[in-house]
Amino acid sequence: MPRFFIHQLARVDQLKLDSKDELRHLACVLRLKEGDELELVNGCGDLATAVIVRLTTAFVQLRILSFEHIERAGAPQLLLGCAIPKRSKLEDIIDKAVQLGVDEFFPLITERTEVRPRPQIVERYRKVAVAAVKQSGRLWSPVVHPPQLFPEFIASVSARTGLTMFIPWLGGERVALRQALSEPLRSQAGSLLFLIGPEGDFSPREVSLACTAGALPVSLGDNILRVDTAAIAVSAFTRLLYA
Amino acid sequence: MPRFFIHQLARVDQLKLDSKDELRHLACVLRLKEGDELELVNGCGDLATAVIVRLTTAFVQLRILSFEHIERAGAPQLLLGCAIPKRSKLEDIIDKAVQLGVDEFFPLITERTEVRPRPQIVERYRKVAVAAVKQSGRLWSPVVHPPQLFPEFIASVSARTGLTMFIPWLGGERVALRQALSEPLRSQAGSLLFLIGPEGDFSPREVSLACTAGALPVSLGDNILRVDTAAIAVSAFTRLLYA
Repeated sequence: MPRFFIHQLARVDQLKLDSKDELRHLACVLRLKEGDELELVNGCGDLATAVIVRLTTAFVQLRILSFEHIERAGAPQLLLGCAIPKRSKLEDIIDKAVQLGVDEFFPLITERTEVRPRPQIVERYRKVAVAAVKQSGRLWSPVVHPPQLFPEFIASVSARTGLTMFIPWLGGERVALRQALSEPLRSQAGSLLFLIGPEGDFSPREVSLACTAGALPVSLGDNILRVDTAAIAVSAFTRLLYA
Repeated sequence: MPRFFIHQLARVDQLKLDSKDELRHLACVLRLKEGDELELVNGCGDLATAVIVRLTTAFVQLRILSFEHIERAGAPQLLLGCAIPKRSKLEDIIDKAVQLGVDEFFPLITERTEVRPRPQIVERYRKVAVAAVKQSGRLWSPVVHPPQLFPEFIASVSARTGLTMFIPWLGGERVALRQALSEPLRSQAGSLLFLIGPEGDFSPREVSLACTAGALPVSLGDNILRVDTAAIAVSAFTRLLYA
């Protein structure tokens, strides 16, 4: 059954869907008609089925057939801070990270980041995230933050409680990610944050800043991974470790 | 130090590099000159450093400075059979899979594969793989097979010994991949083969064929992953589990 995103979803009898994007998807792409059934999610764990009772060019009137709230499983929150890459598109990383269950995404401007995105680009990133939520069947929406400078980002997240930070890095003393995510840590809830550096890696100063804030240097194996591959790899590994 | 690929690498004093692709990369992209040093690999575990003694438009004459053969670690071989996707490019999957250590790659034509590639496309796939070997610092080249039909592929691989097959699937009885790759299996060497279905998944007939040949149905979690995300996720998980 096709799935639509509606912020106002609640335990009610009828609902009006009037988001332009969702309306276009419903009427123009999927060509649904009055009487057709669909699923609704709000990104907060609510899932409903509904039938189209009226379809106009401005809105869709829906009658709710069933409604349930699904409790989140006990796995930790997964946070990904990723340097904005030059070659590969950050949109592709966000798309796959959301499919793989990332809960918060932080686009980072590091010393060696060559791209300086406009702050408004976050709107595009968020659209990609909503599309990935719908496509992957996720019930919880991720938070996509605006791009920020690495030191400001570290200062803001290091104030959070229950957060364990990992920084994959090519040099220095490190433990394998598998060992870092060993049983004692996995039995805690809390949040896991991964820091993914740019092409050319984090600068020594950035690694030192992250480690002073509590980040644990980890290794992702012998091969050198591109930014997008590393970001997707840590998301996939963590997701499948708790699946 | 920049790294170049040369099939003929051996424990010798001098070598001539005349592959057009490598020559263009060396002279036009990196603009190396006589006296510059570089690394050489052959994809079979040999690694050498060399200095350019002569540079012409047709070849580069190299003097070998050091040579070592590195033994492969005891981790199992990682094999990936992936339905050729419609939207995302198989080249992107091969690129990331090679970075993540996949040893053999099989592009698959399944019942629901909508693309029918020419057999010659394997040459392009192999170029992508060689580029990823160089970029990622791998010492062992992967084997990239030509596209083949799913039943023929299953018949050919099921004759191999020491192979454990997994088929991520959206329906039916499955175990979590983490459980499937539990300690007893991880202590064996052998090979692990993952079968990644197309958009719309494998057909029930294909799943049955794979399971009859010994494939274990596994789950990659609750979210629905696109072909490329699933292929990269299983490669990343397996790689990081043995890293």
